[in-house]
Amino acid sequence: MHVRVINPNTTRAMTDLVGRSARAVAGPGVLVDAVQPTMGPASIESHYEEALAVPGLLEQVALGEAQGVDAYVVACFGDPGLDAARELARGPVLGIAQAGFHAAALVARRFSVVTTLSRTVPRAHELLDRYGFAAACAGVHACEIPVLELDDPTSGALERVTAACARAVERDGSDAVVLGCAGMAAFTGTIADAIGVPVVDGVAAATTLATALLRTGTRPSGRGELAPPPPKPVTGLLHPFQITPGASTTRPVLSAVPLR
Amino acid sequence: MHVRVINPNTTRAMTDLVGRSARAVAGPGVLVDAVQPTMGPASIESHYEEALAVPGLLEQVALGEAQGVDAYVVACFGDPGLDAARELARGPVLGIAQAGFHAAALVARRFSVVTTLSRTVPRAHELLDRYGFAAACAGVHACEIPVLELDDPTSGALERVTAACARAVERDGSDAVVLGCAGMAAFTGTIADAIGVPVVDGVAAATTLATALLRTGTRPSGRGELAPPPPKPVTGLLHPFQITPGASTTRPVLSAVPLR
Amino acid sequence: MHVRVINPNTTRAMTDLVGRSARAVAGPGVLVDAVQPTMGPASIESHYEEALAVPGLLEQVALGEAQGVDAYVVACFGDPGLDAARELARGPVLGIAQAGFHAAALVARRFSVVTTLSRTVPRAHELLDRYGFAAACAGVHACEIPVLELDDPTSGALERVTAACARAVERDGSDAVVLGCAGMAAFTGTIADAIGVPVVDGVAAATTLATALLRTGTRPSGRGELAPPPPKPVTGLLHPFQITPGASTTRPVLSAVPLR
Amino acid sequence: MHVRVINPNTTRAMTDLVGRSARAVAGPGVLVDAVQPTMGPASIESHYEEALAVPGLLEQVALGEAQGVDAYVVACFGDPGLDAARELARGPVLGIAQAGFHAAALVARRFSVVTTLSRTVPRAHELLDRYGFAAACAGVHACEIPVLELDDPTSGALERVTAACARAVERDGSDAVVLGCAGMAAFTGTIADAIGVPVVDGVAAATTLATALLRTGTRPSGRGELAPPPPKPVTGLLHPFQITPGASTTRPVLSAVPLR
Amino acid sequence: MHVRVINPNTTRAMTDLVGRSARAVAGPGVLVDAVQPTMGPASIESHYEEALAVPGLLEQVALGEAQGVDAYVVACFGDPGLDAARELARGPVLGIAQAGFHAAALVARRFSVVTTLSRTVPRAHELLDRYGFAAACAGVHACEIPVLELDDPTSGALERVTAACARAVERDGSDAVVLGCAGMAAFTGTIADAIGVPVVDGVAAATTLATALLRTGTRPSGRGELAPPPPKPVTGLLHPFQITPGASTTRPVLSAVPLR
Amino acid sequence: MHVRVINPNTTRAMTDLVGRSARAVAGPGVLVDAVQPTMGPASIESHYEEALAVPGLLEQVALGEAQGVDAYVVACFGDPGLDAARELARGPVLGIAQAGFHAAALVARRFSVVTTLSRTVPRAHELLDRYGFAAACAGVHACEIPVLELDDPTSGALERVTAACARAVERDGSDAVVLGCAGMAAFTGTIADAIGVPVVDGVAAATTLATALLRTGTRPSGRGELAPPPPKPVTGLLHPFQITPGASTTRPVLSAVPLR
Repeated sequence: MHVRVINPNTTRAMTDLVGRSARAVAGPGVLVDAVQPTMGPASIESHYEEALAVPGLLEQVALGEAQGVDAYVVACFGDPGLDAARELARGPVLGIAQAGFHAAALVARRFSVVTTLSRTVPRAHELLDRYGFAAACAGVHACEIPVLELDDPTSGALERVTAACARAVERDGSDAVVLGCAGMAAFTGTIADAIGVPVVDGVAAATTLATALLRTGTRPSGRGELAPPPPKPVTGLLHPFQITPGASTTRPVLSAVPLR
Repeated sequence: MHVRVINPNTTRAMTDLVGRSARAVAGPGVLVDAVQPTMGPASIESHYEEALAVPGLLEQVALGEAQGVDAYVVACFGDPGLDAARELARGPVLGIAQAGFHAAALVARRFSVVTTLSRTVPRAHELLDRYGFAAACAGVHACEIPVLELDDPTSGALERVTAACARAVERDGSDAVVLGCAGMAAFTGTIADAIGVPVVDGVAAATTLATALLRTGTRPSGRGELAPPPPKPVTGLLHPFQITPGASTTRPVLSAVPLR
Repeated sequence: MHVRVINPNTTRAMTDLVGRSARAVAGPGVLVDAVQPTMGPASIESHYEEALAVPGLLEQVALGEAQGVDAYVVACFGDPGLDAARELARGPVLGIAQAGFHAAALVARRFSVVTTLSRTVPRAHELLDRYGFAAACAGVHACEIPVLELDDPTSGALERVTAACARAVERDGSDAVVLGCAGMAAFTGTIADAIGVPVVDGVAAATTLATALLRTGTRPSGRGELAPPPPKPVTGLLHPFQITPGASTTRPVLSAVPLR
Repeated sequence: MHVRVINPNTTRAMTDLVGRSARAVAGPGVLVDAVQPTMGPASIESHYEEALAVPGLLEQVALGEAQGVDAYVVACFGDPGLDAARELARGPVLGIAQAGFHAAALVARRFSVVTTLSRTVPRAHELLDRYGFAAACAGVHACEIPVLELDDPTSGALERVTAACARAVERDGSDAVVLGCAGMAAFTGTIADAIGVPVVDGVAAATTLATALLRTGTRPSGRGELAPPPPKPVTGLLHPFQITPGASTTRPVLSAVPLR
Repeated sequence: MHVRVINPNTTRAMTDLVGRSARAVAGPGVLVDAVQPTMGPASIESHYEEALAVPGLLEQVALGEAQGVDAYVVACFGDPGLDAARELARGPVLGIAQAGFHAAALVARRFSVVTTLSRTVPRAHELLDRYGFAAACAGVHACEIPVLELDDPTSGALERVTAACARAVERDGSDAVVLGCAGMAAFTGTIADAIGVPVVDGVAAATTLATALLRTGTRPSGRGELAPPPPKPVTGLLHPFQITPGASTTRPVLSAVPLR
Repeated sequence: MHVRVINPNTTRAMTDLVGRSARAVAGPGVLVDAVQPTMGPASIESHYEEALAVPGLLEQVALGEAQGVDAYVVACFGDPGLDAARELARGPVLGIAQAGFHAAALVARRFSVVTTLSRTVPRAHELLDRYGFAAACAGVHACEIPVLELDDPTSGALERVTAACARAVERDGSDAVVLGCAGMAAFTGTIADAIGVPVVDGVAAATTLATALLRTGTRPSGRGELAPPPPKPVTGLLHPFQITPGASTTRPVLSAVPLR
């Protein structure tokens, strides 16, 4: 069983972090690796950056399909490109916001979300609406720490995120916290111990939920809305993403994925 | 890691069936067993029977706590007694309707539910509303087969449930089916092969989702709404369920659970 | 016209209180009595206790049916066992949360709810959702007084509940208050005079709404979801609740209700 | 206890009909009378007519206040002018759509509505949304009989409405029917007998619900949104509706209601 | 292209103000005029006044239809009589609350509303629900200034409304403000400059949106719910509003609109 | 006033078509032009293609900003990249799904959507949810014609889309139709004449709504969620999209947009 975690930004330290987070929970018999795109923004804190992260994410899914990966975790809390990635993959593709919400809803009636910058809060609400957790979420709160400062030991990030989580639970009357950035994954246990309610890291949640789906053979249908995209000209800078009809596979392959 | 599946009715064949379903997917390192109450109805097809199944379910959770069980699956599609059971348990307690909806929503935008008798359809809708999947569910359909006929080879149950699933997907335009009874667990693979979309058995889903939560250390907070119930007199026939303050445990124990 | 108020806990003083509340408003031509189960918890403040109260409630409905009762009021704000009770009864069965919400919504655009312990707040929200009053309810507030202290004159309960109601109306900008416990019934008039908006006691509301339904001949259909439960083995401690097919009645009768 | 039914159109036969419907269910100790405005349309089947019916309705509420009426029923299924009427009245004012929905929701999980012309269906949906019964209503169906033909024995109205109700219950899978016009009041019992589920006449429902509110002392607050309208110039044809500050009453009175 | 703004109250200064607001934005090729009814209240701050404003509004729409007006703006934030007016008009009829919400939603994810008296807040919420903007609106706030004081230079209205807008944006975390009264139209630019987010005047929004609809030929269907009202007796004071079948037009005409 | 229509696919014929559609309705004083990206898919019928269309769309917005464009129309019914585009633009950016829904909702209570392939239906529902029109939309229907066949005179597209619109209105009981593809723009008038209800082309709607916003000075705030994206490294194939801090502008500029 091979689960691949894709960090959709191009910062190696975050790729390593989410790989460690996923491997720590995957359990016996599950091969986990973590990759990042060959293109795109260093971190994702705006819709613009989210949009620019998607081609690189798709590149990695196409590569994974060629390598027989069974399931993917998209390790950015905006769940960028999820539907597009699903059209390319034979197995489950889970976003970490989606997975975090699901896991929290399974152990708590109402949860809070603590995210990075306040400009990302509306996207979190949009995802909550889409996945059906608008009523289950008691509040989304920003701690105003940029993604790439989260692992800077001089930023006081752990203390500030912990404080934000404690305030959120108090203010919202919630029973759990979902951490709103893959970069917070290393904080999970410390914060949970500090605030006394379950704290959900989306990377860990997505990895184990993907495994759960694989163990039960629950794979997407590959038809209808999420059928493979039809072969069609793609021109200009993005020409490498043009899909040409696959010969011996049921999934089309990218004509020239700029791997590595 | 010890996951216990509780069949809340008193029919041994169903207990055995859900135990097999759960063990088949649990994966390495997970101990799964299946139990049933010492009291209650032979099957659950009405609100009355659901209500009468709950004391026996609580009995089994209390017993499980004494034995160190890590998580519970409530193997009836009405998710009876879920909140009450959660007040007694230290670890996660998942209902199979809840788990089935979650699993289906992770691989499909919209799913159909195929259940037993039409009188159970409104309860399914109530649970969909509660868990946030009302929009994700494209339809709930009954096949009008009583629970205890599902494993009767002369009932034609497999064929009829398969046909109901195929019709549901066609009519609803959905991408997945959730089977609406623990007694359908053995049909899952056959139906999936027949209809070409993922088919979710709630017992398998709940078992693997519970495991996912345990691997990530995501346990309920044990405070607030779902804190242990306070010690208090319980009289008459139900006196054995009276809670007396526990001495050396953080959870109260039933004064005299009529085990066996 | 015979309306029976069932206090689903086993505390006689509360049974007497809800009987007085109901009789005070029933009007001419309506016979009101109040009963309590022979089994179950002394008060209901958790999901566990709510679950354990239901068998005794069902016992009392079965008994009432044998006695020709026309309608029932379930006098606990969690509306425990409502659907199960409806399967046994020929006439209307109203919960006091349900009835309180309906009455408040008929005279106010938005109402507040003031309940006992904060751990019961989520159940109130669940019922508001189910009955369609989520938007009409401006807030649910706990006053942190246990049920059985409400009638203790040394507890200061009246003053504290009044203060909680005043704060709720001020904070929520609401036009009415629904009292969230049958044990607050005696406070209704005093609080209404103090805060200047209508205050709804669910017991009084349910009694008069049940009478309204009876006067117009509006009885449940007795078919579909809420048809009588099918005869079926019930074993162990709960065997007395087994239903055997009735001979001369359209409703099944409990085989051996442990009445007095 | 004085409940006044206001037929907001100017057709005497309908006023008499709704008066009979209300008196038949009011019960002992309740004085019921029925009135109609001195102005306005002969029946209400469009938004235009609904708007033109409101001044006459307000005239009758103002007159009722001067006469000490305790509660009002607005006997048109569009619930015209309800909020405006509530600003004038000290006691409850109930619309028959509102009351019909409430009564049906108290005995059935899902109900159908059968109304007159299809052009009135969207208004029914609008009221269902406003009152919180959108999910409880399984369908709104028109029988395409104009209001004033309902009591024409040659129109076959009873048969056609009965057939429409039977079809609605079958198609919607509902447990009750709300009749969507005051002019259908006389059909209630016959249809209920024919189709086997409860059939709710809004006039009867509103009369008994108003009585229920009065018996429990549940009156609107008379402040906030629904406080009496402020005195202010009203000119032209509608000058008689100008409110001048009342001398000895808490409610303003119309300066010159063209009574009789 | 002829757009008529109807001020539904009878205060000339407001009619002039809304005319100026509309003309300032209409653009080349659009004829804009502003009218007021011959009857009704001096301002609209209650449901009673709103109801009394509708006949005069309908009078003006009927007159406009005879004059070939292409579209109408109803310049009161309660959107009084909108559906009735639409039954009379061949072209679009827009309310300023509706138009303000639409415009704000096109440039902001979430907007705040700042209205006059707090008693009008629930009506604003009702309209938000009806038009689908309940989730897009982050809050409705009253500044407690009566409509007719808005243009009194000694009232400090501009300062107070500006302060209310600033507070609303801060508290709600919103990206735009909709002004909740036609009488605030002159404040728009000043407030926008002061608070740094777009401020929407409903009169300007409705005028330009109506023009947008006309340019694209998007006219209501004139059938179904909003077909012309059927000819029918209207008696008493409101007899002039009786519709008699038109001879040479597709729209009925009022029998005797008391123009001027 | 300069409104730019961006066709986010790379098919020149569609760019020309949407330009004509927009210019036909823009009115005097509005400069309209139409552009297409230098990169991306030939048409957009899957999430994968939608994702690949976004970089080229952003390229064109950045270019437009440098040229002083006042507002943008994104001429693809999936509204791809809308939020990202808004972060780059000073003025309004409207999607044609969004605009089509708004226009239809202004003249009809309920509308139908007729789109191309059924695999695009779920995206339409997602947008309806996001913009608040889920209740206003009575149905989304596919006519199963690929985008690039719409202007093929031998495809019978006009007849098939017309038939689909007629069926949709009949089945849904709706009052308007929104065409679900920019490629249907030329059909609007013909279909409207054929089916008797307003038919909305999103390109025309977006162009005139954008003009309406500009005339009233309603521009996005440029702060909060939709503030310009922060300067940040973008590597690999997408490096040209890296934002470097602008010197003399308030908006950052792309470092090396591959224009032309």
